[in-house]
Amino acid sequence: MSGPKTADIRKAADEMMKLLEELAAFSTPGEGVTRLLYTPEWSEAQQFLLRRIEDSGLEAYADRVGNVYGRLAGTRSGGGVVLTGSHIDTVVSGGRYDGAYGVAASLTALQYLKAAYGPPLRTLEAVSFAEEEGSRFPLTFWGSGNVTGLYEEGSGAEDCRDGEGTTLREAMDRCGLESRRDSSLRSDVEAYVELHIEQGIMLERTGKQIGVVEAIAGQRRFAVTVKGTANHAGTTPMGLRSDALAAAAEMALLLETWAVRAGDPLVATVGRLEVVPNTPNVIPGEVSFTLDIRHSREAELERFCEDVLEAFGGVAKRRGVSVSVERRLSAVPAPMAPELQQELVSICESQGRTWRSMVSGAGHDAQLFAPRCRTAMIFVPSRAGISHSPDEYTSPEELAAGLEVLIALLYKLGYEETDEAIDAPNNMKERWA
Amino acid sequence: MSGPKTADIRKAADEMMKLLEELAAFSTPGEGVTRLLYTPEWSEAQQFLLRRIEDSGLEAYADRVGNVYGRLAGTRSGGGVVLTGSHIDTVVSGGRYDGAYGVAASLTALQYLKAAYGPPLRTLEAVSFAEEEGSRFPLTFWGSGNVTGLYEEGSGAEDCRDGEGTTLREAMDRCGLESRRDSSLRSDVEAYVELHIEQGIMLERTGKQIGVVEAIAGQRRFAVTVKGTANHAGTTPMGLRSDALAAAAEMALLLETWAVRAGDPLVATVGRLEVVPNTPNVIPGEVSFTLDIRHSREAELERFCEDVLEAFGGVAKRRGVSVSVERRLSAVPAPMAPELQQELVSICESQGRTWRSMVSGAGHDAQLFAPRCRTAMIFVPSRAGISHSPDEYTSPEELAAGLEVLIALLYKLGYEETDEAIDAPNNMKERWA
Repeated sequence: MSGPKTADIRKAADEMMKLLEELAAFSTPGEGVTRLLYTPEWSEAQQFLLRRIEDSGLEAYADRVGNVYGRLAGTRSGGGVVLTGSHIDTVVSGGRYDGAYGVAASLTALQYLKAAYGPPLRTLEAVSFAEEEGSRFPLTFWGSGNVTGLYEEGSGAEDCRDGEGTTLREAMDRCGLESRRDSSLRSDVEAYVELHIEQGIMLERTGKQIGVVEAIAGQRRFAVTVKGTANHAGTTPMGLRSDALAAAAEMALLLETWAVRAGDPLVATVGRLEVVPNTPNVIPGEVSFTLDIRHSREAELERFCEDVLEAFGGVAKRRGVSVSVERRLSAVPAPMAPELQQELVSICESQGRTWRSMVSGAGHDAQLFAPRCRTAMIFVPSRAGISHSPDEYTSPEELAAGLEVLIALLYKLGYEETDEAIDAPNNMKERWA
Repeated sequence: MSGPKTADIRKAADEMMKLLEELAAFSTPGEGVTRLLYTPEWSEAQQFLLRRIEDSGLEAYADRVGNVYGRLAGTRSGGGVVLTGSHIDTVVSGGRYDGAYGVAASLTALQYLKAAYGPPLRTLEAVSFAEEEGSRFPLTFWGSGNVTGLYEEGSGAEDCRDGEGTTLREAMDRCGLESRRDSSLRSDVEAYVELHIEQGIMLERTGKQIGVVEAIAGQRRFAVTVKGTANHAGTTPMGLRSDALAAAAEMALLLETWAVRAGDPLVATVGRLEVVPNTPNVIPGEVSFTLDIRHSREAELERFCEDVLEAFGGVAKRRGVSVSVERRLSAVPAPMAPELQQELVSICESQGRTWRSMVSGAGHDAQLFAPRCRTAMIFVPSRAGISHSPDEYTSPEELAAGLEVLIALLYKLGYEETDEAIDAPNNMKERWA
């Protein structure tokens, strides 16, 4: 690749901005963008993308669960597909960039590459995954999870219900997306690249344009319930209390203190907390709260969780309350492919961009691909670190910089002559098995 | 008083138990007893009491707000009224004894005294106050508060609304209680005596039959709001957080530590706590919680509150969050009349009962009378300290013991020949002004 031509790249970036703008219009009325899985606005957005893909001369198709693809076939027979994209769904009252940026950039990149260089050696595909956020149904990664085999047909996932009692299967049926392939599962993906906003403040704070992701943090989520004794706030002396909220407060502070001591990249959060009976003049009898703990290295993550939960037991015993813990989520860290990280660093250097290596504390579709194929993630800054909010913002210049880096990596993966690391290894099918 | 005759007292106690049983039937269907102000079951209970009072030969009447009285006129002209009673309303799913015991015991005591000794020298009245709990409308002590002048006509209190939007005035209008007097305010009460279950565990734990209340604790209630910054639980390093829940947890623990250090009778409680947005993967941006702080001595109560709130400010500053505090309730401690406490001790000793002096951590109608006339409170044990619950329980023997002590005190106040402390002092009207 002789490097993208400046004028054409500017035009591509403008088209991507227009596409982002158009996607933002597919939203439930209200603040920000709300586009939940299998709702009318979601369906209209994916159908709009299918038309756009077709118009641009890529092969457009949707799979069984409504993932939308744009395919630019390679000239070389055999070998795998280089897949790039992100998710089309949003949280309630989310922003314009989370997910949608990666979708718009991927399609724009393939259109640009096709126009500038014609067909690639290796097949490139852009994807708009159906779902990642978990905002409508009690599951996440429904899109990439069906592609990578996280959800197997007959697993019962399609029986889960949204807040109004509709099952996932019913929602799929009502959605009317044209299904061109029987299964969403793929075993032909040789590399996956995802461009995304950072959803954090590190790039802005350190003044870097591009984040080269080293790993997506592993995550544990626990539901903790503390049971004490509800009692009259006026007539129960301090020495005779089993106050569930005081115990929970001590646990929350302990978590924070230990997390600070453990240091980056460990983060630990009590995000949700409920008190029973939650009345000013009654000592709380029961408190339930969540723990969200993340780290990029599995051993340290698991050890931290074990230590904290053991310490919670000690707090409960000393205070005469009971504590029970339920593990709700357990995701191992997903390291990105070192050779693709190195490639991204070279691209940034050659394009004259500032960059930093970083851990993604947020989960992304890329984490499902990382154990199965070479996977890369590229971050651009999020203003003030704000995300999942109507205030989510990244400037057009920053978005364009990410697009250029993506295009360069896809060129490398799709158009450059063979080297062993990039052509499909023989054991690809095995890794997808 | 030569002392109540054993057989008659047993009969009186049986009648009181029957009356308590009958009152418990006036309840909204569901667990325990639910009898909220100006509901049909409340109205039926007060009308039932009016009929009972009439049948027993006492003068029955209700006032403007629905307090129900039974009057046993004294033979001596001039002087004030000795009033005894408690409240008829309950919390939602409350017990059979809180309030109702004092009402049933007062009526039973007057019937017993009339039957045993005829008319007293000084007028005795039993009262069933309309409301004390604050369970339907956002106010408390509506019954005794109208009698003592806490609520003045035209104060706007009658415009407050229940959870369904009904104003207090509308509820009164719909209630149809016969009003025999124009105002509920009284200036003729010379002494007030209230018999009540402890609603705490101290009598049971120390094995005493009777609690002689020294004072009803003063109370402060605050609404505290902590504002930090909501942010992504995965992408925000520990060092860049303004976690409102961690700050609130530190404040709650500080409150507990300081309260334990202050020692009895100070109690301090965070009973209610709400988190925004209350989502597992979002660092809490805002937490609001209540403080309930009580002590029997005003200066120590006020000082403790000031110190704690100042320390909260320090926690907020160090953590980079804001804290705002709103005072919601401020009740000064209400000391009981020392001469009546001494009288109660003498009665317990002469009846051979075990007793202890104690502070009431719970609020009672008596606290509104204490600044205006000689006031006494008598406690009986609550099993396991449980109250405001269908599990509230005091044995018939323990209830009977309280009744006997009440009868003896009312005999002393109503029937015994003058001594200066008991006959109405000249400045009575002034104290009620």
